[in-house]
Amino acid sequence: MGKVMVDISISLDGFVAGPNPSLENPLGEGGEQLHEWVVALEAWRKVHGLEGGETTASSELVEESLASTGAYLMGRKMFSGGEGPWEDDPNFGGWWGEDLPFVGPVFVLTHHPREPLASKGKTMTFVTGGLDTALAQAREAAGEKNVAVAGGADVIQQVLAADELDELQVNVAPVLLGGGTRLFDGGAQQAVELVRVVDAPGVTHLKYRVAR
Amino acid sequence: MGKVMVDISISLDGFVAGPNPSLENPLGEGGEQLHEWVVALEAWRKVHGLEGGETTASSELVEESLASTGAYLMGRKMFSGGEGPWEDDPNFGGWWGEDLPFVGPVFVLTHHPREPLASKGKTMTFVTGGLDTALAQAREAAGEKNVAVAGGADVIQQVLAADELDELQVNVAPVLLGGGTRLFDGGAQQAVELVRVVDAPGVTHLKYRVAR
Repeated sequence: MGKVMVDISISLDGFVAGPNPSLENPLGEGGEQLHEWVVALEAWRKVHGLEGGETTASSELVEESLASTGAYLMGRKMFSGGEGPWEDDPNFGGWWGEDLPFVGPVFVLTHHPREPLASKGKTMTFVTGGLDTALAQAREAAGEKNVAVAGGADVIQQVLAADELDELQVNVAPVLLGGGTRLFDGGAQQAVELVRVVDAPGVTHLKYRVAR
Repeated sequence: MGKVMVDISISLDGFVAGPNPSLENPLGEGGEQLHEWVVALEAWRKVHGLEGGETTASSELVEESLASTGAYLMGRKMFSGGEGPWEDDPNFGGWWGEDLPFVGPVFVLTHHPREPLASKGKTMTFVTGGLDTALAQAREAAGEKNVAVAGGADVIQQVLAADELDELQVNVAPVLLGGGTRLFDGGAQQAVELVRVVDAPGVTHLKYRVAR
């Protein structure tokens, strides 16, 4: 069976999004700086239908992550791009557009039931049965591959609190965002074990095994 | 002129102390885990009058930091070990005991005037004139060497907000403390530049230059 993983970009001060996120700017003020390193990579651009890009020490990690991911678990706000009336609108297709940038099926943990979205062979399924149900569905879909907990921070915190997280990679961008959404916002004390450090242009990758 | 530096241990979730700090346990619950890597080092133990210890990839960094430090700036709570009636007691000698573990004079930023403490050739001076005054005194005492902003988090945040910080090294311990005192708790957005990553037993050192 695969692992349950988190692979997420954070600021040096621990934020996964800047202040005042909106539907137009779901990453919040300055939040795009967290992802500059990955948007520049050919390995990432290819999956998102974009041309060009560079190859850095991060490329191998991104390729490894994409190759090992079988399914995604995602929170409702990450699907919808924020909080707002659109969440309840069954015609709202989420913030992700038609070219869903995922390498496997996505399971969205939500209280808002809706029919699955399908676009160009990719699917987003909405699970209202709680974390355990969503994780079980994602695990079954992933098979031997990993379940990537895509975010947001609250669903990552739920997975950690439920003792279901195997590995956590934080990609630390060299910026202080000063406010926004924290990756870690309280929780239990827990030891982790450093697996790997990779120092790359515009980012430092720290991968940890979570002691369970 | 020397630099103004921070060199501080934090948990993966961004805390410099665990929950519920007290005079008996100023690092809070679980907070001692942040410092296990340094307490184990011969380089650190020597300065603190302790025997034994090991040499790791961290040793050189600790030696470099000690050799380059000419004076310290410290917050009131870090001096007193927490908040309490002892802060106002002129007979209270602080939490640090008689063997002050510093390689230069310490300037404590406080609203509580008191006479300087001196012990075995080392001094702690209490500055009530505000951050600029305390920093000026520390800079003068440091001469060509650096001013180390020892903490706590609030004085580090003040130095950062005043645009007086040159370099920031965070020593990330592999633990989630789940609560306590955050190193970063709001502030302005600010770019930083990674200078160096050192992966050592029990800790990952990330050193940044602060863009000013």
